[in-house]
Amino acid sequence: MSTIEIYDTTLRDGAQGEGISFSVEDKVKIALRLDKLGVHYIEGGWPGSNPKDSDFFKRIKDFPLEKAVVSAFGSTRKPNSDVKEDVNLKAIVDAGVQVACIFGKTWDFQVVYALNTTLEENLQMIKESVAYLKSNGMQVFYDAEHFFDGCKANTEYALETVKAAQAGGADRIVLCDTNGGTMPWDIQEIVSKVKSVVTVPLGIHCHNDSEMAAANSVIAVQSGVIQVQGTMNGYGERCGNANLCSVIPNLEIKCGLKCLPEGNLAQLTEVSRFVSEVANMHLHNGQPFVGTSAFAHKGGIHVSAIMKNSKTYEHITPELVGNQRRVLVSDQSGLSNLLYKFKELNVDLTQQTEENKQLLMHIKELENQGYQFEGADGSFELLMRRISGQYENPFKLESLRVIMDMKENGPTSTEATIKIWVGDQVKHTAAEGNGPVNALDNALRKSLEGFYPAIKEMQLNDYKVRVLNEKEGTDAVVRVSIETGDGKNSWGTIGVSTNIMEASWQALVDSLAYGLLKQND
Amino acid sequence: MSTIEIYDTTLRDGAQGEGISFSVEDKVKIALRLDKLGVHYIEGGWPGSNPKDSDFFKRIKDFPLEKAVVSAFGSTRKPNSDVKEDVNLKAIVDAGVQVACIFGKTWDFQVVYALNTTLEENLQMIKESVAYLKSNGMQVFYDAEHFFDGCKANTEYALETVKAAQAGGADRIVLCDTNGGTMPWDIQEIVSKVKSVVTVPLGIHCHNDSEMAAANSVIAVQSGVIQVQGTMNGYGERCGNANLCSVIPNLEIKCGLKCLPEGNLAQLTEVSRFVSEVANMHLHNGQPFVGTSAFAHKGGIHVSAIMKNSKTYEHITPELVGNQRRVLVSDQSGLSNLLYKFKELNVDLTQQTEENKQLLMHIKELENQGYQFEGADGSFELLMRRISGQYENPFKLESLRVIMDMKENGPTSTEATIKIWVGDQVKHTAAEGNGPVNALDNALRKSLEGFYPAIKEMQLNDYKVRVLNEKEGTDAVVRVSIETGDGKNSWGTIGVSTNIMEASWQALVDSLAYGLLKQND
Repeated sequence: MSTIEIYDTTLRDGAQGEGISFSVEDKVKIALRLDKLGVHYIEGGWPGSNPKDSDFFKRIKDFPLEKAVVSAFGSTRKPNSDVKEDVNLKAIVDAGVQVACIFGKTWDFQVVYALNTTLEENLQMIKESVAYLKSNGMQVFYDAEHFFDGCKANTEYALETVKAAQAGGADRIVLCDTNGGTMPWDIQEIVSKVKSVVTVPLGIHCHNDSEMAAANSVIAVQSGVIQVQGTMNGYGERCGNANLCSVIPNLEIKCGLKCLPEGNLAQLTEVSRFVSEVANMHLHNGQPFVGTSAFAHKGGIHVSAIMKNSKTYEHITPELVGNQRRVLVSDQSGLSNLLYKFKELNVDLTQQTEENKQLLMHIKELENQGYQFEGADGSFELLMRRISGQYENPFKLESLRVIMDMKENGPTSTEATIKIWVGDQVKHTAAEGNGPVNALDNALRKSLEGFYPAIKEMQLNDYKVRVLNEKEGTDAVVRVSIETGDGKNSWGTIGVSTNIMEASWQALVDSLAYGLLKQND
Repeated sequence: MSTIEIYDTTLRDGAQGEGISFSVEDKVKIALRLDKLGVHYIEGGWPGSNPKDSDFFKRIKDFPLEKAVVSAFGSTRKPNSDVKEDVNLKAIVDAGVQVACIFGKTWDFQVVYALNTTLEENLQMIKESVAYLKSNGMQVFYDAEHFFDGCKANTEYALETVKAAQAGGADRIVLCDTNGGTMPWDIQEIVSKVKSVVTVPLGIHCHNDSEMAAANSVIAVQSGVIQVQGTMNGYGERCGNANLCSVIPNLEIKCGLKCLPEGNLAQLTEVSRFVSEVANMHLHNGQPFVGTSAFAHKGGIHVSAIMKNSKTYEHITPELVGNQRRVLVSDQSGLSNLLYKFKELNVDLTQQTEENKQLLMHIKELENQGYQFEGADGSFELLMRRISGQYENPFKLESLRVIMDMKENGPTSTEATIKIWVGDQVKHTAAEGNGPVNALDNALRKSLEGFYPAIKEMQLNDYKVRVLNEKEGTDAVVRVSIETGDGKNSWGTIGVSTNIMEASWQALVDSLAYGLLKQND
């Protein structure tokens, strides 16, 4: 079975999507998850373009990756200059990674009008830049920007540019549909043309401006390319890049090719949702393969047919990509959804005990309200323990109040008062904060530290707010996710409410309660 | 120039999408808008399946359509029964429209296991049902369900079924990729095969489960079909149907074919957004051609190139589909992004005046604090106007207070009090809300509606919270983004603060202030 290389550029091209702004920590988290999924290459950023990307290349060295190779992006050298003096190329070498991916111009009009140089100089720029990086011991992938438009405008010159990359020693030549305007039949024809003039293995990099990126990528593979560049959930500038969450399963399931290590395709849905959470982007329900509606059946005729044989209205088995079937009109939906979670926590659900049934019912109801336990293992485990009766809360709220005052051009003050019981002792205290959630956090810690000194070790690492039914404006349901750590471990907790403060409170309470629970384990 | 028929099934197949529930009035509104756009056929519903759809066919008769022909959907008759007695087919005739579109089975396994009948009886069902509707004076389109899967399983039988439809007198034979699992090369091969055995003009009906629906539709046209079935914004069961908002511009602009009346393509963006409003579905920003990000440029290198020549990073001119170019201001943007924005707002920044320098410095500083003006055009324009001194705030805050009370197992109450000045009048009022932001929003509107009745038209469409330096936990800086609309336009505003309430307040104030500003423009 042939292998197709997956080159993920979520952290670079994906970050150019509107609304996406990754911190360095976000980037590290995503890179580690992509490595576990088993992509071949992770493009970390453009070290020459901004300090955040340079930071990432330093930080990621602290984490040994299992399989993925990190790549640094950049461009060919500037016109009429010494390649050894090029700041941009030097930054790539300094990134200290094994793979460089540099783009250069294909389209004659761009060379003349955007680069302001000659066609001949552009060829030199390509060849010398590739050769320079090769001489620094790197594997070099050459991204031929605007290749398809360039090839239609001036085929001969476009082919000269990829020959220049080959002459420089490029390890891959990646044909880019930079504007996303190319139709599938042109992809097919032009890939074949390139294959006839260079021997370097080819790659494809598509954008989705015509809604053709996924199709163009698989068609390019059919035409002979061996590397696909794209992003998780198709994030990227304008309409985004080729969506690897669609390309990978199409190549593996429909074309019988190998992209990920054996068995890893079933992680796809989880990875897609993880990346969308970190990016804080709403995941499109109807997203192929991984969306929550991707295997959701609503039409009555579909539902009854599905119950006889799932092949009637499902092109693949949802479990292949880690997704699940949902039956929207039936009360039978959703039980199997949670099986993998239970399995993870070693809860045997094959036994239809009263307790298990109660647990399932309760979880189903919470999910309807907007709870999502992916990434909230702390809250999930507490929930299970509460239902099973094996757990006692370390404290109990009596009441709380938050007051925020703001004056024009004056300071804002926020105060939280809180009254809790620990055993038979009551603690009534108050604290200020930077904002209401911070004030609550401070007051809660102040109340509990005397009883549970371990709380001093616990730190909130991450606090996220997600609006669920956004159309409702400020009346919407929000989900607050908190990540807490004690230096050794970290755990996630959540809260859901129409009131952001109430949701935050639930997540805060769980974060400390779970930390205390683990302390005693 | 050849014409390709556009058959819109938003009102039938689109309505099967998760989260979509059209009222009869919604359906009429959408049908009228689609007629104005100039599609050829509008599938109104399945009169045999539910009373709402039958109502639609009655209601739509009150409105003379300019161009579009309304079609009723249904299936072939039941096995082993008299076609004249079939309730389903009778309902189609009773709908009183000119076109019927009925589906029948192609796939041998489905005939046997889902229909529980013989292969031969299925052929009779197809032929007789088509003939029956023809004898009632209707144009008949035959939807060959699961055609591509069926053809792969048993080519000979699949071809027999479409021959049966031809024998019955079908006016179009529409090949359906019902499960959305077919790859483009199979579409190409199978369409050609069908063309060689029937003379009836062909259509295509794709689903998007493999993210191939748009590509498969244009490829089918390249292979000779003359009708494309799809939905606006790709709504539909599971991952949806072929998205006509992508298929139409691809066929017209990329393939040189005719779908809509001359000049009407420029309505596409408006129609897409209109349908999403009626469906109450969030429009995906990155949607090709019509999304708000479809021509949005963020990377600095892209923006400077775009300013030289838009063809560098745009596959088509946005105006062709009624969309517009946007330049985003973010931490990835260089000076060129700002320059473009200024030009858009008629601020001449080529002159290095003191004011311009101040503006740039101010924006850079705000960006360091965490402001991000992409998607926040409202706040950005207000900011520029404030700095240039050409703007007076419509109201001024004196003070506000938010109080939230929560008791164990009791209700949570949230109240906001607010004191503002409008001119020399002071307004001191209070309101409750679902949460603190909602309470503030309610109080602010209550204060202002007497002075500015236009505020009643403004609705919050979207509310998002992003924690910037997540490592700081609840002490972190948050960015609140709000999207507000007045039914015609929508605009984004933002606020940034360590205090989520303060950030929300800033964004709320800007959202109403900007709405009032545009009212007076």
